Amino acid sequence: MIRSISIGFDEAERVVVAAAVKAKAIGVPQNIAVVDAAGHLVAFRRMDGAKFLSIDIAIAKAVTAAGARKATADIMPATLPGQPGFGIQNLHGGRFTALGGGIPLVAGAAIVGAIGVSSGSVAEDIIVAEAGADAFHSSE
Amino acid sequence: MIRSISIGFDEAERVVVAAAVKAKAIGVPQNIAVVDAAGHLVAFRRMDGAKFLSIDIAIAKAVTAAGARKATADIMPATLPGQPGFGIQNLHGGRFTALGGGIPLVAGAAIVGAIGVSSGSVAEDIIVAEAGADAFHSSE
Amino acid sequence: MIRSISIGFDEAERVVVAAAVKAKAIGVPQNIAVVDAAGHLVAFRRMDGAKFLSIDIAIAKAVTAAGARKATADIMPATLPGQPGFGIQNLHGGRFTALGGGIPLVAGAAIVGAIGVSSGSVAEDIIVAEAGADAFHSSE
Amino acid sequence: MIRSISIGFDEAERVVVAAAVKAKAIGVPQNIAVVDAAGHLVAFRRMDGAKFLSIDIAIAKAVTAAGARKATADIMPATLPGQPGFGIQNLHGGRFTALGGGIPLVAGAAIVGAIGVSSGSVAEDIIVAEAGADAFHSSE
Repeated sequence: MIRSISIGFDEAERVVVAAAVKAKAIGVPQNIAVVDAAGHLVAFRRMDGAKFLSIDIAIAKAVTAAGARKATADIMPATLPGQPGFGIQNLHGGRFTALGGGIPLVAGAAIVGAIGVSSGSVAEDIIVAEAGADAFHSSE
Repeated sequence: MIRSISIGFDEAERVVVAAAVKAKAIGVPQNIAVVDAAGHLVAFRRMDGAKFLSIDIAIAKAVTAAGARKATADIMPATLPGQPGFGIQNLHGGRFTALGGGIPLVAGAAIVGAIGVSSGSVAEDIIVAEAGADAFHSSE
Repeated sequence: MIRSISIGFDEAERVVVAAAVKAKAIGVPQNIAVVDAAGHLVAFRRMDGAKFLSIDIAIAKAVTAAGARKATADIMPATLPGQPGFGIQNLHGGRFTALGGGIPLVAGAAIVGAIGVSSGSVAEDIIVAEAGADAFHSSE
Repeated sequence: MIRSISIGFDEAERVVVAAAVKAKAIGVPQNIAVVDAAGHLVAFRRMDGAKFLSIDIAIAKAVTAAGARKATADIMPATLPGQPGFGIQNLHGGRFTALGGGIPLVAGAAIVGAIGVSSGSVAEDIIVAEAGADAFHSSE
């Protein structure tokens, strides 16, 4: 049997709130998603003004970070033409993405969930996702 | 030109919270989704213990209630064999459902969003969705 | 944080083998799938002669039993025309089914996975799935 | 009329086991899938610790290797920008991939199945897939 720990709603909500505070601070309304260790959605917030087309992207970033166990931005280099991971974005019916803004949430040695953020530029998405992840990691 | 009003995050969150309070009161952890007038996700909460298989169902109920402009349970009769709507659940790639627990959020004459709830029995889902919708309508 | 236990490969394989032994005993080659508590595939076996069209059905039965936390056959009555769950099979892009042959695997109070079997009649699928589940439960 | 031969479960299982032994030897838990000549799943094993996001990728690699009749890594060059196969990964709804780690299983002049491996780096996936394929080919 495999024993595991995963993020619950209270922790997920703290991550979302911290990310939203940062998004507001930089003036970029965002879609913010948090998934558990298995990639299942736990919390989602679309700030007023966030793009509807980025809802699924935010969720995909979180799923990918939880499932690949690394920040989505760190996956990108391996997916470029000529690299071994080229084309991986086509898998999983649009649930896999190497777009920056997905970050795993870690407790001890375990990936217990992930945050995904989308609606701004990739750089803005990463800043907001990191604010959410930092809030989680500093409370561990 | 078409002017419209739609639920924002603050209103959506109040709906989610009211639904979660009711879910806790009846002892049934729920997946709770709120979409805007266009059917796009605004807020989502998976209470600890809610079924992962019901995440997408909760969202589908909200999308359907917003898009069909009626409670999902009220759509059900027309979808039975021999009725004119039989088979409509096959459309929209699993985003349309007549399962009870999706309720429109109304402001004046406008549908401004919807709530969808799933993880309990249909009866429990409806009770929780109504608690969320009531919180919204009583504040209008 | 949520602590959980889930089936590992060794347990999953024992479930598959027990099911396959029963399938052979009744002379019905089967597709046998075992998923973990989160609905992710852990082990799969297609016995020689099992129908290719039933591969995805076996997996769907396991996913549904894990996610709905009950045997798929027990879900069926609520999905009949006129019942509140009518149409639920249309959700989840073909990963939800009320066809008999999906059974949760339980350890203590936790659903730690599920088995799904498909290629025979529903009655034969249930017999084989129960053999797999029994092997797991008797070893707990 | 067309006569064909295809891998059965016993052969598929030997391939999976050989791959799992190699995966353990290099310390990388893997998802290992074997499909038959028609691209239908025959055997699947998720070793404890393998990524859930790589389950479908392992299967896609096996399907592609069986269907394209070559190792998935050998398909990659033709899929790069400027090459005639650019974009082919968008087809088949995520069941086609040029990611390395899918290898056909050959008997005489016939492709009788394929193995797909995913959860490590592409290089690790290829090593493990080759171990599975070698076990099959050396026993022919």
